[in-house]
Amino acid sequence: MHPVSLESFTKKYKTLLEERLRDAVGSLETPENLAKAMLYSLEAGGKRIRPLLVFAVIDAFGKDPIHGLDAAAAIEMVHTYSLIHDDLPSMDDDDLRRGKPTNHKVFGEATAILAGDALLTLSFSMLADMPEEAALATVKFSLIKGLSVAAGAAGMVGGQIADMEGEHKQLTLEQLEYIHLHKTGKLLEYSIIAGAEIAGANEVQKKMLAKFAYHLGLAFQIRDDILDLEGTEEMIGKPIGSDAMNEKSTYPALLGLEGAKKALQDHLILAKDTLNSMGLQVDVLSQITDLIGLRNY
Amino acid sequence: MHPVSLESFTKKYKTLLEERLRDAVGSLETPENLAKAMLYSLEAGGKRIRPLLVFAVIDAFGKDPIHGLDAAAAIEMVHTYSLIHDDLPSMDDDDLRRGKPTNHKVFGEATAILAGDALLTLSFSMLADMPEEAALATVKFSLIKGLSVAAGAAGMVGGQIADMEGEHKQLTLEQLEYIHLHKTGKLLEYSIIAGAEIAGANEVQKKMLAKFAYHLGLAFQIRDDILDLEGTEEMIGKPIGSDAMNEKSTYPALLGLEGAKKALQDHLILAKDTLNSMGLQVDVLSQITDLIGLRNY
Repeated sequence: MHPVSLESFTKKYKTLLEERLRDAVGSLETPENLAKAMLYSLEAGGKRIRPLLVFAVIDAFGKDPIHGLDAAAAIEMVHTYSLIHDDLPSMDDDDLRRGKPTNHKVFGEATAILAGDALLTLSFSMLADMPEEAALATVKFSLIKGLSVAAGAAGMVGGQIADMEGEHKQLTLEQLEYIHLHKTGKLLEYSIIAGAEIAGANEVQKKMLAKFAYHLGLAFQIRDDILDLEGTEEMIGKPIGSDAMNEKSTYPALLGLEGAKKALQDHLILAKDTLNSMGLQVDVLSQITDLIGLRNY
Repeated sequence: MHPVSLESFTKKYKTLLEERLRDAVGSLETPENLAKAMLYSLEAGGKRIRPLLVFAVIDAFGKDPIHGLDAAAAIEMVHTYSLIHDDLPSMDDDDLRRGKPTNHKVFGEATAILAGDALLTLSFSMLADMPEEAALATVKFSLIKGLSVAAGAAGMVGGQIADMEGEHKQLTLEQLEYIHLHKTGKLLEYSIIAGAEIAGANEVQKKMLAKFAYHLGLAFQIRDDILDLEGTEEMIGKPIGSDAMNEKSTYPALLGLEGAKKALQDHLILAKDTLNSMGLQVDVLSQITDLIGLRNY
């Protein structure tokens, strides 16, 4: 089976994921407009990086990635809810996301808030309903607890608050890392650890993967900051230069553009070194790492 | 031990609940302002009806209500998040809740949205962390799944959407019941069923309690509508007559004030008849039912 091309892996599991997301929302007994708003953002495209990480980690352990389908869907729901709420007028006030009007621009602010709430809530059903062959009870509890911690006040939501509090301020590199390790890093790390738990990883392996996740998360964010400077609106689906306009602290602002590019390379190398030291079949996971570090969107 | 006075029961379990809520938020590693915003609304008082229902149902089965503490705290977090989001400018735009400024009035809209998100997210940790002596694995999965369904698109959030869509329209009694059975009824029902599951109720008993919950939920809402007409701002902690001002359909508007009072009595009688037919020690639960039907706040 291995090595597997990233393209065929991505195509197969993106299709399965997107079916699962549609089914999960489609089978809800709920007012039509709410289901529409939930699906609008779930189907707005996106790289599906978090779900792909779940699948690729399971694959690295030689297990069937399909066991990660519900967890991957749950994570994508949480990620999508966070984008809907982040885009709201009282938060980042964004009109465009992935080149399309944001949820509140289409459905109105109240429905957008509720669509986000409903996606967050639904994610926990996805995990609680995982079949036994995908995850035993102890693994499922760990997945549920882990998602709550990664997404909540000690994770993603805490990072979002810190990000808001840091606006229009000159942050230190440490403060900037705190924000990103929480706002985006925790859910990326969770995706990797969830895959590891489903695959039956031991504690040492989970520790190594957490280290991999740390470097991957920072690489992801530095790449984001660089794209905001060097990308085009067409590439990233929203106006470029918005960080500077919003007086947001970024890696290029703190380290210079060349310094940021160097830091990105360093984190990518450390991520891949960690991965390669583990004795797993990491060809897909390694390609996803490159994709995250070198992406143009 | 029985009969127990509602006053001593309420005092004991409210105190335990409020400690648990404070501990759960206090032990989070999170930006101070987010923890403050979460606690502000958790500690804004409130009747704690849902937690008391959890405790009282367990008590009715002759089990120790303390086993319901985490579930009760989880439910109160979900209820509190829903109030924070409902009060937002893009939703009901309320400045006062329980006589105090609403969360977004104190912390700003963005922090209020995130505090609600964080409370919803935390509620699932509370359930996943329940000790084995309070709930076996199968019960815990059922509690997690049940909360997700009751609070989500097929439950509370769906009811809120239907409520918004029904504004400024003349609704039928059926449409009004749909709204209330979802917007407030599902979480009340969940509180009762969660208590029953923790106490080890069988399927027939859970079905009877669901019937009890149905009548109690409607009684709760009809009383709410009557209070909006007959109460004082001091009693209910917010301006009276706001339903009429917002052109909301209400039971008194559909049935007349006397008709609504009659419907309230009917539902209370049916709720208590159901309860009394079950052969449980329902003294506390019965007193809570009266409290809900006859409350002045």
